Amino acid sequence: MSTLRSTIDFLLNDWLDATSLNQRERFADHSRETFDAVLDTCERIAREKFAPFNRTVDAQEPHFDGEKVILPQCTYDARLAYAESGMLCAAQDYELGGMQLPYVVEAAANGFFACASVSINTSMLTSANANAILVAGSPLQRLVFAVNEFNGRWAGTMALSEPQAGSSLSDISTRAEADGEGFESDPLGPRYRLRGNKMWISAGEHELTENIAHLVLAKIPDEHGKLVPGVKSISLFIVPKKLVNEEGELTGERNDVALAGLNHKLGWRGTTNTLLNFGEGKYPVRGKAGAIGYLVGQPGEGLKNMFHMMNEARIAIGMAATMLGLAGYYASLEYAKTRTQGRPVGQGGKDASQAPVAIIEHADVKRMLLAQKAYGEGALALNLYCAKLVDEGRTASAEQADRAKLLLEVLTPIAKSWPSEWCLEANSLAIQVHGGYGYTRDFPVEQYWRDNRLNMIHEGTHGIQAADLLGRKVRMLGGAGLKLLAETVNATIQKAMAQESLSAYANQLARALAEVGATTKAAWANENPEEALANAVPYMQAFGHMVLAWMWLDVACGVLEKDTALSDLQNAGRMNATRYFFHYELPKIGAWLRVVKERDLTCAQMPLDAF
Amino acid sequence: MSTLRSTIDFLLNDWLDATSLNQRERFADHSRETFDAVLDTCERIAREKFAPFNRTVDAQEPHFDGEKVILPQCTYDARLAYAESGMLCAAQDYELGGMQLPYVVEAAANGFFACASVSINTSMLTSANANAILVAGSPLQRLVFAVNEFNGRWAGTMALSEPQAGSSLSDISTRAEADGEGFESDPLGPRYRLRGNKMWISAGEHELTENIAHLVLAKIPDEHGKLVPGVKSISLFIVPKKLVNEEGELTGERNDVALAGLNHKLGWRGTTNTLLNFGEGKYPVRGKAGAIGYLVGQPGEGLKNMFHMMNEARIAIGMAATMLGLAGYYASLEYAKTRTQGRPVGQGGKDASQAPVAIIEHADVKRMLLAQKAYGEGALALNLYCAKLVDEGRTASAEQADRAKLLLEVLTPIAKSWPSEWCLEANSLAIQVHGGYGYTRDFPVEQYWRDNRLNMIHEGTHGIQAADLLGRKVRMLGGAGLKLLAETVNATIQKAMAQESLSAYANQLARALAEVGATTKAAWANENPEEALANAVPYMQAFGHMVLAWMWLDVACGVLEKDTALSDLQNAGRMNATRYFFHYELPKIGAWLRVVKERDLTCAQMPLDAF
Repeated sequence: MSTLRSTIDFLLNDWLDATSLNQRERFADHSRETFDAVLDTCERIAREKFAPFNRTVDAQEPHFDGEKVILPQCTYDARLAYAESGMLCAAQDYELGGMQLPYVVEAAANGFFACASVSINTSMLTSANANAILVAGSPLQRLVFAVNEFNGRWAGTMALSEPQAGSSLSDISTRAEADGEGFESDPLGPRYRLRGNKMWISAGEHELTENIAHLVLAKIPDEHGKLVPGVKSISLFIVPKKLVNEEGELTGERNDVALAGLNHKLGWRGTTNTLLNFGEGKYPVRGKAGAIGYLVGQPGEGLKNMFHMMNEARIAIGMAATMLGLAGYYASLEYAKTRTQGRPVGQGGKDASQAPVAIIEHADVKRMLLAQKAYGEGALALNLYCAKLVDEGRTASAEQADRAKLLLEVLTPIAKSWPSEWCLEANSLAIQVHGGYGYTRDFPVEQYWRDNRLNMIHEGTHGIQAADLLGRKVRMLGGAGLKLLAETVNATIQKAMAQESLSAYANQLARALAEVGATTKAAWANENPEEALANAVPYMQAFGHMVLAWMWLDVACGVLEKDTALSDLQNAGRMNATRYFFHYELPKIGAWLRVVKERDLTCAQMPLDAF
Repeated sequence: MSTLRSTIDFLLNDWLDATSLNQRERFADHSRETFDAVLDTCERIAREKFAPFNRTVDAQEPHFDGEKVILPQCTYDARLAYAESGMLCAAQDYELGGMQLPYVVEAAANGFFACASVSINTSMLTSANANAILVAGSPLQRLVFAVNEFNGRWAGTMALSEPQAGSSLSDISTRAEADGEGFESDPLGPRYRLRGNKMWISAGEHELTENIAHLVLAKIPDEHGKLVPGVKSISLFIVPKKLVNEEGELTGERNDVALAGLNHKLGWRGTTNTLLNFGEGKYPVRGKAGAIGYLVGQPGEGLKNMFHMMNEARIAIGMAATMLGLAGYYASLEYAKTRTQGRPVGQGGKDASQAPVAIIEHADVKRMLLAQKAYGEGALALNLYCAKLVDEGRTASAEQADRAKLLLEVLTPIAKSWPSEWCLEANSLAIQVHGGYGYTRDFPVEQYWRDNRLNMIHEGTHGIQAADLLGRKVRMLGGAGLKLLAETVNATIQKAMAQESLSAYANQLARALAEVGATTKAAWANENPEEALANAVPYMQAFGHMVLAWMWLDVACGVLEKDTALSDLQNAGRMNATRYFFHYELPKIGAWLRVVKERDLTCAQMPLDAF
């Protein structure tokens, strides 16, 4: 029976050959042994400090006592164990206290935590924040903020959205005004006063760490004191909850950042989600309202600087969705093996005098389990593949690195959206396998389903991902990204053609790839974005299924290369999941592509009052 | 803009011509006016006593204080208003205090309550219980139990499942033994002592009514004291919570029925769900452990007697799922019209200097709304169509009645399963339209989604419905049911062929119907249920989409017959929903049918240890 560890081991080592990265200078100290040691540690901490408390953080939702946000003790313990493991800066340079781990190994290792309890750990945000400061910040900002986040002393947030501006960041109205004379010469960076409301800020307030460094998008007004519409007027600021000096010590002053409310969510309740008021005067600084913020990078480059790590952030969401999918798969597999009920359908009908069988014996239960396996393990393959592209983009030779980056651009919307949609479906199947028990809070699967529903929303909704894919990614550089993807898929098709048991699937994938290509052209045939993008989501669904079929075919090739006898049951399982995907899933793309190809405007032209 | 009332009015009157039933003797006193009066009343009570408290019953989950089950006050108020409206026995004979309302009108009127708060009202169970007693009980059982349930004094439950026997009722182990000498001559019915545990009993314990009459499935042991395996040894018993005399008065004695626990559920929290212990001796009766139960009908006919009203019960679940789907549709439609964000995609790109538009202007939001409309209103059409078949089966001429019953048998699995699956998807889209706000408990849509997840599970899971459809319904009487369905669908196709704007859809539906027919044959080609039923669920999904396409085409014909100018925007909306269904949904059946046709055993033959 496959486990998360055995699946990660196979994908990372047998399939992606992650240790080959160790030939590069940056990773030269690493080996299969060091990778395994990291995985061992994370698996253990996840088992001991995360998994037992997943229901606790759901039931004991964060609340505000008027002064502090109260979280259960297990959250402190889990965070501490995580920070102490060094995973907060696993991929960072040695000189920053990191271990120069490849990103693909870091991503895989973090998977154990997400599988154990997706919402208890908010360190992903801290890492993302610190990474953005590393890329765009000044040397002192790196030293004071990034380093203190990587070492676990402080936490970080990403404060982008506002109540009126979620998907549409061009409309943010948080204002940043120069903080008096000499604002430009603050050693921590040009000093501004920020005023505005930020919404959906995960981990925006808590007592888990000594301090919180908010990374805030805001607009510096023009010479008339007005905020310029659009994204090009957006700048990025570090706004610490408590003010610090250039040694990274707390000065003892509270910054003017106030919790305006906690969001009460459907799931993902281990993570506080907040509405923050910046600069409303609740905590005046030096006698004045306005939150002190330090400009990061150049004015007007806020979005670019914040989105530097966007691909990784989206892969991380894809991984979270994937891990929830797998968590449900493992739970329902366990249940199906132990729960007895009913008898197999046979030629002679059901014989009630026979003892009931484990429900995993029923074909429909097997179908629901195999679908979960195909969704979850397939999504994991895709996300690890993308994570490895991140490493390639950073450490491969220039030409190879450019190819990796380009391919990653095209695949990122799928790496984020596909697991969000299909591993949610997997969680629904996990409930269904449990029957009525799955609908109760005595079993974990209903929580996985609730937690997973967030992933189609945050870090760019499904609609945003689809518009990015069809509106930008497959068109950029004259379609070079799509062409590169097609070449890469074709390489797998060629490999698979040589395998008798896979050649039919290779042909099926070739047809799907051609169909996606033709549909892309048809969508843009008259270069009208209104028509082309009217069905961007069905396009992305079809594109995603084609990509996942490619992943499974490539995994199947990997299995056959390693073990042609298929003596290993786990490998037999992978071959069956491939078969499942080609028989049950890939044929779905026709219906999705049809409306895209025809530039169907049934929805787009629906009169508003006809709803 | 359509509302639930306007949609029901259209479907009931313009489409189904419900008033034509009034030509029959049973309904002779009724008219469009009396139907409207019932709808008015239900709409008002739902608005005043149900809708405002939907979140209350979710947040204030039932709990047991050791003696009583505590429910919020609004549950008492809602129940009282419902009982006083006469809806508990709306469809019953005048002599039972009913109003002889057609079932289709009763079902439509009950829709308002489900849309307002699906779980606050448990009267459906009471009606189902009383109806079963009406059909199978003795005259005194009807008078004492059914009448006191219809008039609202007592509540009723259906106690079928046990912890080890949910889908597989043949395995129940609750035992019913004759209660001493003279047990057969109790005026309330042959008197037994029941011992066993019942699981998933909705409304199994509460203080809403003076008494609760449980309808319990149990087995009478054979002459060796053994329980005979299988369903044919199951009998049906009335087990009152408090004992009553033949006048229907409480005797003051508690029966030996004890609450063993409340289930804590994902949703549907307004309804208590219980584990009940029968006869464990907590409340001994006349000094002895064992719950007193009165046999209903003949021994061994328990399932038949309990399942008399199965079609209606399953339509009621379909209606509940439908109403949740529509509730989410209306909520997200309202949100999309008022929430502003972003700008339309245009030839010139997005111009941030323009004011943001209402999000309903975005094509992808329209797509999500139109999908919800097509799912919800389509499901409502199907359920009302089936409800009218119930009336036809009871009151039409013999030949017509037989046809209606046969057609209903084939359609019932779809009426139950299709809304459960697709109106749940609608609720997910309603969350998505809301973005992050939809993930919070400040908006109602996340609750609709949670509540709706139950419907694929209770009253026969998706897997059970699918096995019933492909294993029994399309095969019974030599395929007569399927043939009748095909004839009925063909009648719509012929009507639609005559309409220029619908003829392409008529052809598309004809092909889908033929494909479903051919696939049914192919599934059973070698008469092997293991092969035929391995993909029963995908078969049901395709079958359901074909049925819904038929519904929409028939509705579209209804629109054109009434209003060829389509001047009414609501009718334009219906035509667009039809278009949506044929463009976006019906093409999905190919992928589902493929595995059925090929009797694909990828899932069925998956080795257990390969998962």
